[in-house]
Amino acid sequence: MTAEVIAVGTELLLGDILNTNAQYLARELAKLGINVYYQTVVGDNRARLLEAYKAAFSRADIVIATGGLGPTEDDLTKETAAEFFGLELELHEPSWEKIQGLFYSMHSNMTLTNKKQAMMPKGCTVLVNDNGTAPGCCVERDGKLLFLLPGPPNECIPMYENTVIPILKPRSGAVFVSKTLKICGIGESTAEEMLKDLIDTQENPTIAPYAKTSEVWFRITASGSNEEGARAAMAPCLSEMRRRFGVNIYGEDDDTLEGVVVKALLDKGLTIAFAESCTGGALTSKLVSCPGVSAALLEGAVTYSNEAKMRRLGVKAETLRKFGAVSPQTAAEMAKGIADTSGADIGVSATGIAGPDGGTDEKPVGLVYLGFCIKGDVSAVELHLTGNRAKVRTRAVVTALDTLRRALAKI
Amino acid sequence: MTAEVIAVGTELLLGDILNTNAQYLARELAKLGINVYYQTVVGDNRARLLEAYKAAFSRADIVIATGGLGPTEDDLTKETAAEFFGLELELHEPSWEKIQGLFYSMHSNMTLTNKKQAMMPKGCTVLVNDNGTAPGCCVERDGKLLFLLPGPPNECIPMYENTVIPILKPRSGAVFVSKTLKICGIGESTAEEMLKDLIDTQENPTIAPYAKTSEVWFRITASGSNEEGARAAMAPCLSEMRRRFGVNIYGEDDDTLEGVVVKALLDKGLTIAFAESCTGGALTSKLVSCPGVSAALLEGAVTYSNEAKMRRLGVKAETLRKFGAVSPQTAAEMAKGIADTSGADIGVSATGIAGPDGGTDEKPVGLVYLGFCIKGDVSAVELHLTGNRAKVRTRAVVTALDTLRRALAKI
Repeated sequence: MTAEVIAVGTELLLGDILNTNAQYLARELAKLGINVYYQTVVGDNRARLLEAYKAAFSRADIVIATGGLGPTEDDLTKETAAEFFGLELELHEPSWEKIQGLFYSMHSNMTLTNKKQAMMPKGCTVLVNDNGTAPGCCVERDGKLLFLLPGPPNECIPMYENTVIPILKPRSGAVFVSKTLKICGIGESTAEEMLKDLIDTQENPTIAPYAKTSEVWFRITASGSNEEGARAAMAPCLSEMRRRFGVNIYGEDDDTLEGVVVKALLDKGLTIAFAESCTGGALTSKLVSCPGVSAALLEGAVTYSNEAKMRRLGVKAETLRKFGAVSPQTAAEMAKGIADTSGADIGVSATGIAGPDGGTDEKPVGLVYLGFCIKGDVSAVELHLTGNRAKVRTRAVVTALDTLRRALAKI
Repeated sequence: MTAEVIAVGTELLLGDILNTNAQYLARELAKLGINVYYQTVVGDNRARLLEAYKAAFSRADIVIATGGLGPTEDDLTKETAAEFFGLELELHEPSWEKIQGLFYSMHSNMTLTNKKQAMMPKGCTVLVNDNGTAPGCCVERDGKLLFLLPGPPNECIPMYENTVIPILKPRSGAVFVSKTLKICGIGESTAEEMLKDLIDTQENPTIAPYAKTSEVWFRITASGSNEEGARAAMAPCLSEMRRRFGVNIYGEDDDTLEGVVVKALLDKGLTIAFAESCTGGALTSKLVSCPGVSAALLEGAVTYSNEAKMRRLGVKAETLRKFGAVSPQTAAEMAKGIADTSGADIGVSATGIAGPDGGTDEKPVGLVYLGFCIKGDVSAVELHLTGNRAKVRTRAVVTALDTLRRALAKI
């Protein structure tokens, strides 16, 4: 079975946004054993969209188009698909009710154009959008399938997972299973070197590396005639990789570093509080992104000025004068201060020079200290991070979470 | 003049890498006033590459293909292009010498296949690669141009800048200028409705909307025979849009909402502090992303628990008992508390229900209160936000920054 992906949007043709949907869909279709030989990007233009549908359907069994399902006149993906198949558009009442409900709950004015989003090709299967106003749809004709999905990735991806996979999976012959191992604390090239023999010789499963900021992920994909066979083909490679990376593996698949940390805190009944300088609240915010964190997270303090470090956290004036705000001593006192004043079992701090200004020969941009106060034991870690202001801050947050994860594993 | 971009590589079709070259080239071609109506991704496959060249040249004056210039048998982009044009490949001595030199300096073993990279279509213009072994090339035929560029972005981008722009620039007649107006506080469809007459009737400039989470951007693009002419064509439309959106426009082009807020604080010599509950530090972190914010930002407090709200911010137990943690009264006391204890001119707070749990009929998921204490004046704003946990938090942050921006404009 072959599929093609058509991403629709003038903003893609102008280079205003990156075509991340095409990458996501390509990877997901590969998992189902569906070959993709072409991806196309085309603008919000009726004639060119028609040509794109025609070319794609002359070559492939399945076409997935993303984008152009919005309420404005520019959005033509659905209208042109209906024209291509010779189908009329008709109002899909449940979608229209949902759109009205969403606008009502936002106390927002709805314009007539929003009704356009509920007009669907006659006879299609409507795909529910849990994260936006535009429903998607699936049209079947002569054994070929067209899927229309919304453009924003946070709408496109859940819709693919919840509605497209259940339609495609039973039609795909081979079964593919994959697992992602997520690693922190080892650089990308070192991690790949550690697996070179496996990557070079393996055919089933295959191993693909993905580098993230301060993380490396490996995706292992195996095929078989059924799921059991595919899992059996993957097992020896997976256990060898687990042996080689050991504690550097923080999680699998949908795990996030912050999710793993929050789970460990909740499992062990520990409470935590943060004192942040250069990370400016990003560390606390990462934890707050995990539902249910309120049982573990007591407090966060963004103490950007020296005065706040002293008043809120009890950092000593002498420490700041003698060692500076960016020092292991200050990081340690910040961590102890937030643990003591909040009453948390664990206090974590970050102080550093994120740039672009503020660096010196002695304390260059990228120098960050993390402080930890774990049940009264105080320590500090020195980091030398690379990249611009945003990268330095992200790397500091990731490293703080990973250091915390390793410490929690020993409690 | 129209161009198409063909990205070649099985790793793109499998979703192993993101097609960042296509975005880069699209943006750069737009700057030269060259229209791109299609982008294609195709694998390292002779027959499908031939079809892609054929389709692209049937529609466009210029085709830029990236990737597949490597030394292995898989790499077919150049060989297939030569076949498409009926050209032989011949050894390009300077390239071959350079490749040999590079391998010598790397103390690396060179295989015979590397010679393949120096074989170029007869009569082409060879494009020097300053960052790798694969030279690019430009083939001209019947007034149409084909460029072959290497796949790695750190080779593709410098080659485009150094060798492709000098060839394309003199051929592009028109000059294009564009400006982006950034709007907050009006929904996407309402904003478009407000411009419908302009969008429908304008040809030069054109107006394109882009919806972001809780923001709408409009990009206005005008052409002319020179930059002055293009700017003159844009001016009346721009001033009409500024008139219609007024204070809802927070900035232009590279402006960010947080950058505009920080600039206003610094300009007016005002200090600020934040007290966050549901946003969990994300609001403070947004400000910290702006270099130089330390002169304005005194402190942030993430008071996730009721206990922290009382102890750190002085929120009254009675207020929490009577109205709850998610209430205008609590938001107001949080804002006043952080302003008072930090000594900042302005205190801003956020408290709400981000979900997925914790909502009730009376206080549903998405209900967020923002509190403001501006030089002693205390107020609260009620928001009803949609989307998942991450969206609700982002919208709360954006709305808080925008409300702050409007308040600062009046001080």
